[in-house]
Amino acid sequence: MALHGGAGDITPRNLPPDQEAACRAVLSDALNAGRELLESGGHALDVVETVVRLLEDSPLFNAGHGASFTHEGRQELDASIMDGRTALAGAVAGVTTIRSPISAARAVLERSPYVLLIGRGAEEFALQNGLDIVDPAYFHTERQFQRLEELRRSNAPQPSKTPEKWGTVGAVALDRHGDLAAATSTGGMMNKRFGRVGDSPLIGAGTYADNATCAVSATGHGEHFICNVVAYDIAALMQYKGLSVQAATEEAVLHKLVKRGGEGGVIAVANDGQIAMTFNCAGMYRASVTEGGVSTVRIFGEMSASE
Amino acid sequence: MALHGGAGDITPRNLPPDQEAACRAVLSDALNAGRELLESGGHALDVVETVVRLLEDSPLFNAGHGASFTHEGRQELDASIMDGRTALAGAVAGVTTIRSPISAARAVLERSPYVLLIGRGAEEFALQNGLDIVDPAYFHTERQFQRLEELRRSNAPQPSKTPEKWGTVGAVALDRHGDLAAATSTGGMMNKRFGRVGDSPLIGAGTYADNATCAVSATGHGEHFICNVVAYDIAALMQYKGLSVQAATEEAVLHKLVKRGGEGGVIAVANDGQIAMTFNCAGMYRASVTEGGVSTVRIFGEMSASE
Repeated sequence: MALHGGAGDITPRNLPPDQEAACRAVLSDALNAGRELLESGGHALDVVETVVRLLEDSPLFNAGHGASFTHEGRQELDASIMDGRTALAGAVAGVTTIRSPISAARAVLERSPYVLLIGRGAEEFALQNGLDIVDPAYFHTERQFQRLEELRRSNAPQPSKTPEKWGTVGAVALDRHGDLAAATSTGGMMNKRFGRVGDSPLIGAGTYADNATCAVSATGHGEHFICNVVAYDIAALMQYKGLSVQAATEEAVLHKLVKRGGEGGVIAVANDGQIAMTFNCAGMYRASVTEGGVSTVRIFGEMSASE
Repeated sequence: MALHGGAGDITPRNLPPDQEAACRAVLSDALNAGRELLESGGHALDVVETVVRLLEDSPLFNAGHGASFTHEGRQELDASIMDGRTALAGAVAGVTTIRSPISAARAVLERSPYVLLIGRGAEEFALQNGLDIVDPAYFHTERQFQRLEELRRSNAPQPSKTPEKWGTVGAVALDRHGDLAAATSTGGMMNKRFGRVGDSPLIGAGTYADNATCAVSATGHGEHFICNVVAYDIAALMQYKGLSVQAATEEAVLHKLVKRGGEGGVIAVANDGQIAMTFNCAGMYRASVTEGGVSTVRIFGEMSASE
């Protein structure tokens, strides 16, 4: 399995050591939680939900508690999850009161005839299905508030490049039953307006899983990931061109996306257990553990890393 | 170019002759409007917007005026448009006051840094950009209201199979400049709840266009089209497997979707001008005109039709 906490211009120079250590600790905890579930025979779908939920609960990443502020000063959250066994999915977009958007996405998958629910309708569904509803203030963090304030002072349409620029969280897993799953959750683009939704809740763009090929979770400049249908493109490159998961992620992220100016990265696991963590920017918060139990937790590094 | 007005269990037995004639007339008018634009050197993006807008304005199809009612008795509209020249897109979902959702999608494409805007945010964007805002009652039609009432009386979760079951509208075009474009607009699933969004506003699912391959607009059981990433899958089958647009639509719609129980159809035009109109249900409201000027307007027919 693999997980990510977002990608961007993350370098040793702009990430203070104490924040780096805190991020590594959360990534490591989430990885261990997922690993334990897998080792005890847990299902991939449970694993990716559990891991993403832990990252949502951390104030360090742009999802759930600690999500980016919109232009209007609130949090609008998006998430999606896909089950590779059935190739069915669930997603929510633009929700403001659901503590764990990824658990809401899972409820949509399992308890509704729909795939994507948005806004108040999604919140009503979550309420009716007994999900944890919180005051919108729960999602606020001082760190993200300061980033919005800084942005407002600078009058820039986007925040200056910071480690959190494309801070989305996600996980992919292959379980002992041979099933794949993928999950992604985000607060979306800092200072976003007009109900903007990125790639995270969109199946094929930010999330995709099919036992026939691979499971993928993406993080990056969402608009490019949507128009390039990045997550599904990786599966198509494997299925139709016979590429390995590593080669497929490199084609999608290092060649096609770069050509069109789309910054970001993906994590993917193939149905044979191969893991790829590929990004075209300075860094990506990421961690992985192989079937053999070899684990890594990384932030900076090469343009692409195959574990 | 080609256009559609939805697919489903549409047969001579369940479509009254007067309604059939009325539908044929609207399809024909929309086709002629698109053809004239193309013949005068118009751009594919203008053509698909114009054609879809005419279909939105007609009360006969499930988009714009005449859209399906939600469970709560209102209209929540979705639309998307993609420019094959730039491979950039715009979309809106869950809007209730924008007269032409497809024109709003085009405005998102051209006047915002975003791809997908939802709900009130999308409506505020439309207002600020001078789009036509209407009272939600504008979208109501007696015909759709009667369908909701019938459904409520029957207590069924979904309407009985009717010609409008998957009534979405869409258009694809190749212009004289060699550029492709695709557009799709819908009122979504009859009796939908909880802010449900289908494939129509989702790039890669209901709409896709890239000059490298083809332009596609889909109509059908949206959840299946989302999970199978149908519109982009057709492009991937052409690009990675070298299939013709006809063979690619047949693989996606007649094989892959059928295997997973997904009902519906697509229209597609390749960058060489070949047109495919493929569906796996009884009928699809459709019309096309080739570069040579050969035009067709059809409703019932073969499982798949290549013009």
